[in-house]
Amino acid sequence: MDIKKLTVEEFLKEVASKSHVPGGGAVGAVAAALGAGLTEMVANLTIGKKKYQEWEAEMERVVEKMEALREDLMSLAVKDMEAFDKFMEALKLPKDTEEQKKIRSEKMQEALKHAIDVPYELARKVRDVIKETEVVTEFGNKNAVSDALSAAELLRAAFEMAKANVKINMKSLKDEKLKEYYAQEMDELEKQVYGAYKRIRDMIEENGWL
Amino acid sequence: MDIKKLTVEEFLKEVASKSHVPGGGAVGAVAAALGAGLTEMVANLTIGKKKYQEWEAEMERVVEKMEALREDLMSLAVKDMEAFDKFMEALKLPKDTEEQKKIRSEKMQEALKHAIDVPYELARKVRDVIKETEVVTEFGNKNAVSDALSAAELLRAAFEMAKANVKINMKSLKDEKLKEYYAQEMDELEKQVYGAYKRIRDMIEENGWL
Repeated sequence: MDIKKLTVEEFLKEVASKSHVPGGGAVGAVAAALGAGLTEMVANLTIGKKKYQEWEAEMERVVEKMEALREDLMSLAVKDMEAFDKFMEALKLPKDTEEQKKIRSEKMQEALKHAIDVPYELARKVRDVIKETEVVTEFGNKNAVSDALSAAELLRAAFEMAKANVKINMKSLKDEKLKEYYAQEMDELEKQVYGAYKRIRDMIEENGWL
Repeated sequence: MDIKKLTVEEFLKEVASKSHVPGGGAVGAVAAALGAGLTEMVANLTIGKKKYQEWEAEMERVVEKMEALREDLMSLAVKDMEAFDKFMEALKLPKDTEEQKKIRSEKMQEALKHAIDVPYELARKVRDVIKETEVVTEFGNKNAVSDALSAAELLRAAFEMAKANVKINMKSLKDEKLKEYYAQEMDELEKQVYGAYKRIRDMIEENGWL
């Protein structure tokens, strides 16, 4: 299923349907892509405005980066669905003999690693986007500050969705070292995402921009 | 522009483009529709499961309600864009004579009321959805608890997006009584939305569901 080619209505129907995919992981990637889209819009609404002339090159850099990240995020949405399907395939493998049980367990662990890696990648991309949301909030067109804040809120939600998906898959992961690695990485990303989120909210509040 | 007929890719492009619409308001409505979609999915994944048999009718009620709310939310996304266009039209009215100035100001105030009413309606719908997200989190299929949490996060974000849009339009509204009315209503809705959001997060945490 190539999500980006579905209409918004079709995508909503697929989300709502009686199937685990597309679920929170894929929707999280789409939410992050919408956050990137709003960030790009604020940059676009800044470019060409005399008042913000000195930030023109910076805004052009943001536009370019958001376009690439939107693409990446839409690919991640599809990868999230594939990761789930791969896990379900492993789950359905035969488990009659000891040998079969061993193979099934190995395949399931392999699929789980992939199912963790996709939302982990989503969390990293969310961090990449929100860094730029902070830039457009601070230096971009103040007529679009509610859009910058909207982007920050969506990105915060997307991070929490990524985190929920990492956590639920970690429950069945046996590799303790890898578990610790993901837990630490996610903690570090959380600090970065919430740091940017808080700075965005604070500067809007303190400057009375909204 | 009928958002629901655009592909996800086209919608993202429209959001990112150098135009205020679709902006945070319309994207907030789509985010809420995605939250409703995930809530509906959890209900659908509960229906027909022996373990959750006693909640079957309740889950069917949720599915029906979410379908209606998804529709309403997609209409709100379109209305949000129309409200902005209406304001821009008023802004462009001539202001050479006193009479023209008066008409322009009246039309702008009228358009502003509409531009506040749409995100206010969004905030109410978000409250209606998250009440049901709480139901599916508590009584629904626990294999989909990360999806229920994802829905709650999206709905929280959608509420904040609605709030930002109410606030930015309130800045130019002159009717003090109406301002007070909206401020009070939004406070009350905020309590309800965050109440449900917190209960969802707490029950997942306390029961170790994630």
